[in-house]
Amino acid sequence: MNAKGITEKSKTNENKQGIGPVETKYFTFAHTPRELMLESGERLGPITLAYEIYGTLNQDKSNAILILHALTGNAHAAGYHPEDKDPGWWDNMIGPGKAFDTDKYFVICSNVIGGCKGSTGPASINPKTKKPYGLDFPLITIKDMVNAQVHLIRYLGINQLLCIAGGSMGGMQVLQWAVSYPEMVRAAIPIATTAKHSPQQIAFNEVGRQAVMADPEWRDGHYYGLGVPARGLAVARMVGHITYMSDISMEEKFGRKVKEERPDKKFSPDSEAASGVRFLVIAFKSDWLYPIYQSKEIVRACKQAQLDVSYYEINSTYGHDAFLLEVDEEEHFIKNFLRKLSDE
Amino acid sequence: MNAKGITEKSKTNENKQGIGPVETKYFTFAHTPRELMLESGERLGPITLAYEIYGTLNQDKSNAILILHALTGNAHAAGYHPEDKDPGWWDNMIGPGKAFDTDKYFVICSNVIGGCKGSTGPASINPKTKKPYGLDFPLITIKDMVNAQVHLIRYLGINQLLCIAGGSMGGMQVLQWAVSYPEMVRAAIPIATTAKHSPQQIAFNEVGRQAVMADPEWRDGHYYGLGVPARGLAVARMVGHITYMSDISMEEKFGRKVKEERPDKKFSPDSEAASGVRFLVIAFKSDWLYPIYQSKEIVRACKQAQLDVSYYEINSTYGHDAFLLEVDEEEHFIKNFLRKLSDE
Repeated sequence: MNAKGITEKSKTNENKQGIGPVETKYFTFAHTPRELMLESGERLGPITLAYEIYGTLNQDKSNAILILHALTGNAHAAGYHPEDKDPGWWDNMIGPGKAFDTDKYFVICSNVIGGCKGSTGPASINPKTKKPYGLDFPLITIKDMVNAQVHLIRYLGINQLLCIAGGSMGGMQVLQWAVSYPEMVRAAIPIATTAKHSPQQIAFNEVGRQAVMADPEWRDGHYYGLGVPARGLAVARMVGHITYMSDISMEEKFGRKVKEERPDKKFSPDSEAASGVRFLVIAFKSDWLYPIYQSKEIVRACKQAQLDVSYYEINSTYGHDAFLLEVDEEEHFIKNFLRKLSDE
Repeated sequence: MNAKGITEKSKTNENKQGIGPVETKYFTFAHTPRELMLESGERLGPITLAYEIYGTLNQDKSNAILILHALTGNAHAAGYHPEDKDPGWWDNMIGPGKAFDTDKYFVICSNVIGGCKGSTGPASINPKTKKPYGLDFPLITIKDMVNAQVHLIRYLGINQLLCIAGGSMGGMQVLQWAVSYPEMVRAAIPIATTAKHSPQQIAFNEVGRQAVMADPEWRDGHYYGLGVPARGLAVARMVGHITYMSDISMEEKFGRKVKEERPDKKFSPDSEAASGVRFLVIAFKSDWLYPIYQSKEIVRACKQAQLDVSYYEINSTYGHDAFLLEVDEEEHFIKNFLRKLSDE
């Protein structure tokens, strides 16, 4: 989602003034409790959270906005790090005059626990073993992430946030904040997110995990200091990349390649030879892999060639598999088509 | 798509009489040319095609229907193999009284070259080296598959097919048949297919390939006789499985698991504490990973809790990435929302 390098450049706001140099800060639980009680019942500690701040907190501490990031994101939401030519992942939205206007608001971006971007996670040292946690790191939920962030907000002296905002997994934290700490939140902006993962979303994440775990460099999670499962991760990133884009945006991005394809590779029944074949084209409404617009293109090509073409769109929830499963309607259309043909 | 075991059971036709026992036959080019000139310019030979036939060819050989299969399919489209309790992959559509009625039509299902289901492919013996081709097997196109099938049809004594039909990659062969051999085809039924792969479709296939190639058992393609890249293949199949289904069909299939989820995991701002937080919910029309219906569910939950909620759907072609890229509209809605909030 928002890992630098994965997504394309911001469309606009490039001419607006930015925040300039920023740095990632680290907050470690210093007062009791130094540990966090997780949803699983396990205790985790010590806890460190990486975060960044932009703008100025006003006198009555009423202008604070908390930004929450997506799965592959980090605390560096805006401005520049000295060593890095790319700005933070939401720099086009956070800054003077921008959506989250740092001339008016004090903007905080908090990293999450359980990741690898500076906050306590599987790469942190397990105090019991003095080695990285690895697979011994407890399972972390969205609620655990939020329960850790509350300590950071209190540490910054803020009793109530003007607003919390985030996209994708950031939006899930937004929803959790609103449910768990409504007294600390005046307003919430969940963007491009869900209250509940669908099996499809769960499955795509599982593909990523399985791809990493299929890499021998994964070493059952004990890879610290021994190299990383880079090939598996590359496959996982590829899946992620496809899911973050759309069919159309990929067409636009890789458009040049598409234009370079050989013209004889196109379906062109209007070549003189093809005239005469009758077509019955069938497509399924929930088929997102071979969407109906592609079948309509076939129909259009047939019509341009003045071929006899019938087109049926079948209502189905089976996706691409529908052609193997929606037997009744398919049978009906095919039988009629073949009957007419045989009668001629 | 149609690999046995991947898809669910047929919805209907289970009470109709089936074809009964069938066997896969093998046709090897015996007459000149024994080789096939491929689109790439390479020559491939000897050529064997696996196929099955159902029903009876009539006197004037005018009732033949050619069925073409999808990526993971094979020649076994209908009836039963003695050793296998599952019928062929389109048994619900091919048989007495079914869509492709074997009481009326002579149905042929031809496998494709380039695969691993009985026809010439990378596992075949390369006559030059006396070893399996492996990665030395030439690149095969849809046109090459069809050019091989024409020899089978002529061998069966058929000058003109009543109809050709197939879904997915089978549909692509249908289109190619109609363009390359229109004089041999009276009618064509391309189902759930495309005349041209979109970059998204190409990318999903590339994920599958990369997953297999990331498996050390792949051994740069030299794995014959040494075990198979099963883990990589499992990841590839997982991706395939997701793309063949829909968001909704996965929900239906895995519905029980979903129902078992803990109720406290749901977004329920109507818990007494949450009342008072204002919501601005933003979703993007081309976001197929986090579809707009999920944002609408958040809005519905807010309204049920009588919370103040605004909802905006932004037109975008960027898919899920849109929340990082559609800055102008997002900025507009967020600025307005924050301005009203600050003015209170």
